[in-house]
Amino acid sequence: MNTLAEKLNDTLGPAAAFLSPKGRRIYFPYGGILGQGAEAKACDINATIGMAFEEDGSPLVMPCFSKGITLDKKAFLYAGSFGLPKLREVWREMQIEKNPSLVGKTFSNPVVTNALTHGLRVAAELFAGPEDTLVTPDLYWDNYSLIFGEALGVPQALFNTYTDGHFDAKAMKAQLLAPGDKKILILNFPNNPTGYTATDEDAAAIVAAVKEAADAGKRIVVLLDDAYFGLVYEKGVHNESLFAEFSDLSERVLAVKLDGTTKEDYVWGLRVGFITFAFKGATADQLKALEAKAAGNVRSCISNVSSIGQHLAIAAYADPGYRAQKKEKYDVLKARYDEIRRILAQHPEYADAFEAMPFNSGYFMCVKPKGVDAETVRKYLIEKYSTGTIVLSGLIRLAFSTIPTFKLARLFQNVADAINELRA
Amino acid sequence: MNTLAEKLNDTLGPAAAFLSPKGRRIYFPYGGILGQGAEAKACDINATIGMAFEEDGSPLVMPCFSKGITLDKKAFLYAGSFGLPKLREVWREMQIEKNPSLVGKTFSNPVVTNALTHGLRVAAELFAGPEDTLVTPDLYWDNYSLIFGEALGVPQALFNTYTDGHFDAKAMKAQLLAPGDKKILILNFPNNPTGYTATDEDAAAIVAAVKEAADAGKRIVVLLDDAYFGLVYEKGVHNESLFAEFSDLSERVLAVKLDGTTKEDYVWGLRVGFITFAFKGATADQLKALEAKAAGNVRSCISNVSSIGQHLAIAAYADPGYRAQKKEKYDVLKARYDEIRRILAQHPEYADAFEAMPFNSGYFMCVKPKGVDAETVRKYLIEKYSTGTIVLSGLIRLAFSTIPTFKLARLFQNVADAINELRA
Repeated sequence: MNTLAEKLNDTLGPAAAFLSPKGRRIYFPYGGILGQGAEAKACDINATIGMAFEEDGSPLVMPCFSKGITLDKKAFLYAGSFGLPKLREVWREMQIEKNPSLVGKTFSNPVVTNALTHGLRVAAELFAGPEDTLVTPDLYWDNYSLIFGEALGVPQALFNTYTDGHFDAKAMKAQLLAPGDKKILILNFPNNPTGYTATDEDAAAIVAAVKEAADAGKRIVVLLDDAYFGLVYEKGVHNESLFAEFSDLSERVLAVKLDGTTKEDYVWGLRVGFITFAFKGATADQLKALEAKAAGNVRSCISNVSSIGQHLAIAAYADPGYRAQKKEKYDVLKARYDEIRRILAQHPEYADAFEAMPFNSGYFMCVKPKGVDAETVRKYLIEKYSTGTIVLSGLIRLAFSTIPTFKLARLFQNVADAINELRA
Repeated sequence: MNTLAEKLNDTLGPAAAFLSPKGRRIYFPYGGILGQGAEAKACDINATIGMAFEEDGSPLVMPCFSKGITLDKKAFLYAGSFGLPKLREVWREMQIEKNPSLVGKTFSNPVVTNALTHGLRVAAELFAGPEDTLVTPDLYWDNYSLIFGEALGVPQALFNTYTDGHFDAKAMKAQLLAPGDKKILILNFPNNPTGYTATDEDAAAIVAAVKEAADAGKRIVVLLDDAYFGLVYEKGVHNESLFAEFSDLSERVLAVKLDGTTKEDYVWGLRVGFITFAFKGATADQLKALEAKAAGNVRSCISNVSSIGQHLAIAAYADPGYRAQKKEKYDVLKARYDEIRRILAQHPEYADAFEAMPFNSGYFMCVKPKGVDAETVRKYLIEKYSTGTIVLSGLIRLAFSTIPTFKLARLFQNVADAINELRA
């Protein structure tokens, strides 16, 4: 094993037990090109950099590229494997602002990822091996299986997602307590596909269940997939990330927060996300070691994340209009959510055709067709009603984020009609 | 194994033998969200998409983000795991234009990657397993080890890079013929760190050596790392990618071209690269299957590549000024290369202090200090001469891409002085 990897593992001490075999091997190459480049930063003649500069020292960038952005040309330079320091700092501050429970808690600086999926992949490579088990609700984003199962060979165990309209923390606990020392748990609120966020009551039950499993001897890596953070439309719903609760729950629980600009800031093609770490009793050095492992993994996978994307995010967050604009966009989605609630209340007969799954947040809601297979309904909806939907885990997912308010009534009428016709 | 993966493997037939265990498992999830979304594309009501749109159907994007680009707001939408079709088409055409030997040859469409490193990672995951051997010259970019070794556990075998000022194809052949059925060979011209590109003579010897090893029963995946493509400063240097030669060399040789915008178009933070496949006798279906494997791997790793980066590239390549601007930037680097040649010719005494390694292209050149350790020289250069350099494989790498022409004489004088002082 590389000595830099060994050093990081030594720094992590008992927390190194969270790492997968691959996670133990990885390191940030401080001694290589990147580390040597950092040492030469202040030099008068700096011949370390794998980029090109003009005779006057400015970035050598062609106008045909730079005309596409209103940012400074330096946005075309590498951002580094950790991400732009300014963006990491701003995102960290914003997390505390959005999650007041984080005040006074200890957690790492965020490392920039190529959005949510890449954050999941980094976490998967660092912490999940074929000997471990990925634990997810049975209603989950299908890419989890591609990342953990196909790409990394990690077995997946499902638990029942809802019981009586609430998150089934009991079913989750049973899976955490099932044989196997190390469990990788993904919690995704607001949830894709269902658009459900844990209520305050759910949240307490979830945290207690993880604590119990940890106290029973399990080592648990909790991945908080906070992709749709902030898009909560009801009172009584837990509107902070559970990262705060897990950040100091137990020495046997590693909390990994995965979040980003994509969904909550409506910039899907920007590809800027973050991964942040915390566990009870973590020292500053241990958190730095996890950041170095993450950045080393980024280096080994994509080298670094779009610098233009990161500069665009820095500029947006510094814009005095950011908060008002975000509220305005939230209101667009909230109005559609309210309209769906109105439609469902106005049409009690829809309950004969489908069951609306618990939803209170996010981009989506799901319905479970009664007496007919979801995939059959999906195909029929396209052919007969020119209505496109997604089928996941036997549910029909409806992305109200993409449907103008005036079309929502027709959407639900189409779904109900399709089911009724197929059953007739 | 997933049935979609099995189907792709069946389509590949004997070519499936190029795949790693992980490569065999991966598939593009046509049946999942992405495939279902594609089926619903023409629907009047399309509730499939995990993005958000305004009431008028336009992308729901905040002005604080869109003000940063001069492109249409659609640049903030997802680009898809294969990459934007337009960009893939344009890049393919440009490859044929830049490599006339490709005319009439059969090769896949390029799949978009998060630049070169990610292309290497995709290739590594699809084709290299712990049972295989990565074969590289002993002068190589250190990230190869992080990608193949640390991240994927693939053993690496080195061969001597240069003999008599030329690429040592004989040493390469010996490593290809060493025990082990499957070899992953990386060829990187112009080379990082040395700035060397194979001469026409070298190129012929390299291709013949691979052919011989394949005929002797080896299965060889040749990764062409064409990061610095086009930056060739001498006559007699092979100024096309070797991809053309390998694309139809043997059924036992898979050619994988890795290239991108980063270095050759001077947009390091853009993160747009490509991976392209070819092998002798490949059918259109087999090449499509490799594209699907690559896109499935992209999906499992980063979901998709910066859409803004891809749109910027499309706009740049459509710009009537693109070719002239590229020539202008090439001339900047070429002038520095010429200046270095002049300096070395003017200072024969430098040969007492260091040996200039073969160089004729790219961003860099390397010197090998005589009688003193390269790392010692590097540190001394920073302290005493405020001159930053990179040490790789016992060589001092000098990035003339970053040094204005008027500082080059001082750079070389500093290096020579440092070595002489350390030896004194």
